[in-house]
Amino acid sequence: MKNAAVFRLAMAHPGDLSELERLIASGTVRPAEVAAVIGKTEGNGGVNDFTRGYFTQTLMGLLSKHLRRPAERLIREIPCVLSGGTEGVMSPHYIVLCIGEHEGVPAQGPALAIGTAFSEPVPPENVGRRAHIDSVADAVRKAVAAAGIERPDDVHFVQVKCPCVTVARAEAAIAAGRVPLTSDPNKSMAYARAAGALGVGLGLGEIKPDGFGDASFLSDFSIQSPRASISSGVEVESNEVIVLGNSPHWSGPLRIAHRPMGDALDIGAVVDVLSDLGIAAAPQVAVHDAARIAAVLVKCEPDRRGRIRGNRHTMLDDTDINAQRHVRGAVAGLVAGVIGDGRIFVSGGAEHQGPDGGGLIAVIASQEQGRA
Amino acid sequence: MKNAAVFRLAMAHPGDLSELERLIASGTVRPAEVAAVIGKTEGNGGVNDFTRGYFTQTLMGLLSKHLRRPAERLIREIPCVLSGGTEGVMSPHYIVLCIGEHEGVPAQGPALAIGTAFSEPVPPENVGRRAHIDSVADAVRKAVAAAGIERPDDVHFVQVKCPCVTVARAEAAIAAGRVPLTSDPNKSMAYARAAGALGVGLGLGEIKPDGFGDASFLSDFSIQSPRASISSGVEVESNEVIVLGNSPHWSGPLRIAHRPMGDALDIGAVVDVLSDLGIAAAPQVAVHDAARIAAVLVKCEPDRRGRIRGNRHTMLDDTDINAQRHVRGAVAGLVAGVIGDGRIFVSGGAEHQGPDGGGLIAVIASQEQGRA
Amino acid sequence: MKNAAVFRLAMAHPGDLSELERLIASGTVRPAEVAAVIGKTEGNGGVNDFTRGYFTQTLMGLLSKHLRRPAERLIREIPCVLSGGTEGVMSPHYIVLCIGEHEGVPAQGPALAIGTAFSEPVPPENVGRRAHIDSVADAVRKAVAAAGIERPDDVHFVQVKCPCVTVARAEAAIAAGRVPLTSDPNKSMAYARAAGALGVGLGLGEIKPDGFGDASFLSDFSIQSPRASISSGVEVESNEVIVLGNSPHWSGPLRIAHRPMGDALDIGAVVDVLSDLGIAAAPQVAVHDAARIAAVLVKCEPDRRGRIRGNRHTMLDDTDINAQRHVRGAVAGLVAGVIGDGRIFVSGGAEHQGPDGGGLIAVIASQEQGRA
Amino acid sequence: MKNAAVFRLAMAHPGDLSELERLIASGTVRPAEVAAVIGKTEGNGGVNDFTRGYFTQTLMGLLSKHLRRPAERLIREIPCVLSGGTEGVMSPHYIVLCIGEHEGVPAQGPALAIGTAFSEPVPPENVGRRAHIDSVADAVRKAVAAAGIERPDDVHFVQVKCPCVTVARAEAAIAAGRVPLTSDPNKSMAYARAAGALGVGLGLGEIKPDGFGDASFLSDFSIQSPRASISSGVEVESNEVIVLGNSPHWSGPLRIAHRPMGDALDIGAVVDVLSDLGIAAAPQVAVHDAARIAAVLVKCEPDRRGRIRGNRHTMLDDTDINAQRHVRGAVAGLVAGVIGDGRIFVSGGAEHQGPDGGGLIAVIASQEQGRA
Repeated sequence: MKNAAVFRLAMAHPGDLSELERLIASGTVRPAEVAAVIGKTEGNGGVNDFTRGYFTQTLMGLLSKHLRRPAERLIREIPCVLSGGTEGVMSPHYIVLCIGEHEGVPAQGPALAIGTAFSEPVPPENVGRRAHIDSVADAVRKAVAAAGIERPDDVHFVQVKCPCVTVARAEAAIAAGRVPLTSDPNKSMAYARAAGALGVGLGLGEIKPDGFGDASFLSDFSIQSPRASISSGVEVESNEVIVLGNSPHWSGPLRIAHRPMGDALDIGAVVDVLSDLGIAAAPQVAVHDAARIAAVLVKCEPDRRGRIRGNRHTMLDDTDINAQRHVRGAVAGLVAGVIGDGRIFVSGGAEHQGPDGGGLIAVIASQEQGRA
Repeated sequence: MKNAAVFRLAMAHPGDLSELERLIASGTVRPAEVAAVIGKTEGNGGVNDFTRGYFTQTLMGLLSKHLRRPAERLIREIPCVLSGGTEGVMSPHYIVLCIGEHEGVPAQGPALAIGTAFSEPVPPENVGRRAHIDSVADAVRKAVAAAGIERPDDVHFVQVKCPCVTVARAEAAIAAGRVPLTSDPNKSMAYARAAGALGVGLGLGEIKPDGFGDASFLSDFSIQSPRASISSGVEVESNEVIVLGNSPHWSGPLRIAHRPMGDALDIGAVVDVLSDLGIAAAPQVAVHDAARIAAVLVKCEPDRRGRIRGNRHTMLDDTDINAQRHVRGAVAGLVAGVIGDGRIFVSGGAEHQGPDGGGLIAVIASQEQGRA
Repeated sequence: MKNAAVFRLAMAHPGDLSELERLIASGTVRPAEVAAVIGKTEGNGGVNDFTRGYFTQTLMGLLSKHLRRPAERLIREIPCVLSGGTEGVMSPHYIVLCIGEHEGVPAQGPALAIGTAFSEPVPPENVGRRAHIDSVADAVRKAVAAAGIERPDDVHFVQVKCPCVTVARAEAAIAAGRVPLTSDPNKSMAYARAAGALGVGLGLGEIKPDGFGDASFLSDFSIQSPRASISSGVEVESNEVIVLGNSPHWSGPLRIAHRPMGDALDIGAVVDVLSDLGIAAAPQVAVHDAARIAAVLVKCEPDRRGRIRGNRHTMLDDTDINAQRHVRGAVAGLVAGVIGDGRIFVSGGAEHQGPDGGGLIAVIASQEQGRA
Repeated sequence: MKNAAVFRLAMAHPGDLSELERLIASGTVRPAEVAAVIGKTEGNGGVNDFTRGYFTQTLMGLLSKHLRRPAERLIREIPCVLSGGTEGVMSPHYIVLCIGEHEGVPAQGPALAIGTAFSEPVPPENVGRRAHIDSVADAVRKAVAAAGIERPDDVHFVQVKCPCVTVARAEAAIAAGRVPLTSDPNKSMAYARAAGALGVGLGLGEIKPDGFGDASFLSDFSIQSPRASISSGVEVESNEVIVLGNSPHWSGPLRIAHRPMGDALDIGAVVDVLSDLGIAAAPQVAVHDAARIAAVLVKCEPDRRGRIRGNRHTMLDDTDINAQRHVRGAVAGLVAGVIGDGRIFVSGGAEHQGPDGGGLIAVIASQEQGRA
């Protein structure tokens, strides 16, 4: 019987993995059981956010030392998905997802299940195109199978990290006679996230293969997956996939739920997803219940129509602060206020991920107070 | 019997007063009854935020045209307090506070009361010093008297706009042999806000004249006023004061309440202040109740100790985004989520204004659904 | 005989026209002779830069007062072209271009000539399209005729301010069934600048009407005008054109020259344009020669290929600072260093304006030391 | 006979040391000869710039692999001084300083000499105080001795990296009953840089031990060293010192010169320092001479009085872009324009380093065209 464990750890800076080191030293975490890491680092979340690469290098160096395997290999086996930008009340932290085997533990109903997969590298000219989408969908199917989740409804969160172009990569591709969709890195990140979202929808069967065309891409936002969370960055070349759901084949106290968010003010979705896990927020989660929460995962988006519930917002017109930084800070303020805790993963760029102008929220919590 | 009316109006840009123009044209607002304006403009909220001056120039030009009095005079009579920065979900808007006289209207219990006052100009070398505090306190007492509020407890919100130094003003003062506290404009804004807050506390009797010294200034944050909201900017030279409270001598459906906020996650304070006004938020204010809300006024602060409820935040260490922009975006996300509306006034820089690391919230609402 | 005068004036903030007020009060500037204003304000130079509107409102109010004509009329007659962003060593300032008539003054060879024109308003859906280009070209031809410049080679600088879409304007157009090129304001500004540049080239005969198509737009940057300087902003609805050149029909000590800049390191172009005007820079303009300089006008661009002379730059990959702010600061540092003065107009966004990755520089100076 | 070699290498991102790896692989660089590294990374140059830590971790990992010694040891022996911020035309790059022994090479007059030293760790409460200054001065003397430079005039550049406080470190110190000068990291970086500069002046004998007191610190900027270049960052705990000069005991084609810069427009200093090395710039260094240049090292500062040559600048009043980012971009634009190359090290924060409001420039070049 497989068993998922989730550790939410603080960092003093993007190269600080000392809390994980301590858990390994104490025997609480066994390095070979680390299946994936999801984290918020304190970069700007944009193309020139190197906190993600710094964290990843440090993590892989640490695991390499303990597992006595080269970091270059581990980085192709253990998805490490980081979202830069801890605007406002967010606290830099990372979530270590571990898969253990516990013989003799009786199943007690469905429990948190984890599956991961890597695609082949995506060449710059494919970023944001159909080939990219198909590549993500394949990896999602593999990860669902690896998690042993049988019913598609039991998948609650699919995190994908997609590669994008930089100016340099785009120039190299063009020099080689290939045509990227764009040479603008910020635009490429959006294309990559969109491809990832449609790939998740395709992989989970939410979206049909003929349900969208080139014209719907970054345009018809009614085509979306409320369980897809896509990051994009310069530091990866393959799609990295983490599937989280509930499965009767797994044991342990943890369970996951998710809800779409209708817009950046959708506090109801936050309260509802907590309620799905038996946690009340009236208006804030009580301290003893907060201790049951192992991870909060949110995607959001500055409404591209320039208004939220009829009122003009200024996120898209700001030359000083990137729109994604704006919306992450606002939505994190809302979610952290309900949870009473700034250790939440809020990531921007929710194209085709949940309702247009909104996004989604997933929460992992233990049934009773447990380790988290 | 005096009567307070509050109009919350949208703007397309900081020089757009067309909604007020329309209300004047239709006779809904009588220019002579405009007592004060409070607004959020879409600047950066810092020293080089000129959206405040732009709005003020436009407002005074508009009123000058209708009142046939010079704008230079009106600007010394009608407080126009703007806070720059509509980070995240906030929507640029302004609140027009009007005082009317309605003979024959019977008093129906306490109603919203408005009083205003201007101090003498504050010379650069006095900014942030005891003379500045005393100057604010005097103006607060005058405004309370003007509002006809008899019990100090009936004052719920005191908005003050304080002048600060710019590099140029500081240089001029130094050249004249006078010594400003600082030549750093960002620092001066903090000093000015602190002086304003202590001035409000002194004026309302919350803080005793001998209850603080130079050493407690910007240092002992247990000395604070939970009803003071201070802005600071380069565009004013005097302290401008707006006092809002409830008074049996005023009529009309509007009433005001306030609550201190313990920290940037204090969703409880938001729910409580609404409850004080008979409005439920479970978790969000219902649409028909939201229509009763005429103004939401919030002060907040990035916790200077670097942590919120034990978790590290990164607002103070960010070289790219000013810490006040960070916290405004986060707290506005929380408050707007509860209210269901981005037209909220959230201002940073809450030194000595409410609990350390937190701030305060005030809400004006009508008793039953009315004009707002 | 017409006579051009140029006044370069400092401002303390974007609403500060006190230096012009003083010159009017002293009789040095006659309000009716003000033909155009070009300035650098201390905003961010992006879509949400309201310092341009603030300055314009203040200028038109000032002239309205003196000319006793409504500001709404003057704004459609006197081009006021502002570029936001005084990054680095640039000093906020504005250049007042005046046209006087001086009977009996003998012509002394060619002198600075000024012509202006306004196009019809450009609807949002036309921004950046052929109709926009044609509209600019027509206005340029009118302004050249107004300046009385007969030889196209005697035109040295054409400043155009083009309207762009905001999210709100784009939404309104779409709601009305019209299709703007983009709803992204930053992108729209680039389209508008490109249309302006091609319009200038077309109007001056540098570019043939069939010399470009939709495919060359923002793509084939070999199609360019080395005399076009285009700004774009939300605060105008028509194209505003200022043509500067030398004409035998004008008198006075001022003369203008220009040079294309090959890239952001092209110090040679700066030295050469000064040399064209008889001013040495070895390495810096001497103080007595600097006093002859009346205006320095520069356009520049972050090289979209990501490299300058083979070395990678990071301007296009920066999520924190807009690329135009980066390049303005750098090129202004270079030009101000050669001139020895920070009162230079350096504007970004040089699409189709001078060589790809570079831009252009124009300088106005008096033949001998004179008023400037 | 010792021999200094300097390699100027490009990086694709802050964790990219592939060019050094290639030079090691080809035998051009021997890992044991690497004495120090100075570089510009593409972070923001502020407290939350983690590109410096990322680069350092990667460098030490690389050297550790080749030298078969732990990275934790190497980091205390090989100064790695990085300045974040490649604003404008600057290109991210690093300079590897190597010390070789070449027996039998005859001395040919003075050549570039390199010396390094590390101080003890500086506790947070000492940052920016006299103890910090003395600690730097001692390390400078050790590094001069290590370089074998006998005449103080032959020292041309002293690079020091000083630790500063973060909010977290300051809180820890306060909790332990110790009093840091400030808890504000940006302010702490300024204190640390000032301490470093006075320490260099003290160590080189430019400043007398009794030549300054607490009152002159960050106040009397006439006390300065025109050869001190100080960086500060969260990633170091000790002062790291690199001394560069010319010595008759060293051989090879490289030589170093320096000049103070009077202000941010001092192009004369740039031309003069090149002239000291026999390189003409009229106005730009010719391509064949540019190939002789091995390193360009600049310190600069936004004039704290708010004006440059009488004209107001806006760097200190900008809430959106840090003043150091502004000035680095401007001065780099000037220097890169003269050199014709963006691979220059321009670092802000020049308190007590060169003239007030200016800074300094040092250049390393080979006598004839050589390896660089």
